[in-house]
Amino acid sequence: MTEHSLWRFSRALHRAINERRYEDLEAVIDDDVDWAIYGPIDMFPFLGARRGKLAVLEVVRQIADNVRIHRFDRETIMLGVDSASSMLRYSLTSLDSNKPISLRVAHFAQFRAGRLSSIRVLVDTFDLVEQALGRPIHLPKISSA
Amino acid sequence: MTEHSLWRFSRALHRAINERRYEDLEAVIDDDVDWAIYGPIDMFPFLGARRGKLAVLEVVRQIADNVRIHRFDRETIMLGVDSASSMLRYSLTSLDSNKPISLRVAHFAQFRAGRLSSIRVLVDTFDLVEQALGRPIHLPKISSA
Repeated sequence: MTEHSLWRFSRALHRAINERRYEDLEAVIDDDVDWAIYGPIDMFPFLGARRGKLAVLEVVRQIADNVRIHRFDRETIMLGVDSASSMLRYSLTSLDSNKPISLRVAHFAQFRAGRLSSIRVLVDTFDLVEQALGRPIHLPKISSA
Repeated sequence: MTEHSLWRFSRALHRAINERRYEDLEAVIDDDVDWAIYGPIDMFPFLGARRGKLAVLEVVRQIADNVRIHRFDRETIMLGVDSASSMLRYSLTSLDSNKPISLRVAHFAQFRAGRLSSIRVLVDTFDLVEQALGRPIHLPKISSA
């Protein structure tokens, strides 16, 4: 049994972010990759959609300039033949402010010939924004309950 | 081939929210269900964690008091024997304000004997908060890129 493409991609991504070594990541990304991390791009320009390997390597460089990964716990995972989804908790440091950030993330990934061809990432963005600001945002209670 | 538990649960949930008919939902939820929708509970008290069928039926009633589902598109889906994950876009109306809300959601669900035993839901919460407020929240640019 060969290793699932998710594990190679995950290791390569974390090495790229933490060690700024991009050669493994380059090898596991499809030339025409479709990439999106949904979130407020005004605050975090490295979120949003990217298309193609060069654009993705560039945005991973921007992520590496902004955060370091301390640990991650994969809370749930589903593996298909050429697909994978998981929910994870990341413990990050914002390099700019040196602040710890704890973040819940869900991703859905597709692979083609062992390389990432598509990924969609959803983040608990309000939690992220409050942690990055370092203060709570006052919210009215909306519910009619 | 029998129908996957996800489809029964999904139909029952939508019927509960839009028609306030809870009997189908009651039949597809495990007594000891573990339920969480991550998000700012100060603003939306019907988000957060619940345990057990009664607590989940009660929180779905609160959701039904607050939103109506217009449509949903399942963008990605993974099905296992007793598990399912998907990413969806929901078009909702906030009943309080009559405002439309468009929302991206990821869920990971586990079933036991055809009933929902665990679900974790991640929402693009910053986007949700801005739409519920009806105005953008000013954010500083954080990135060092």
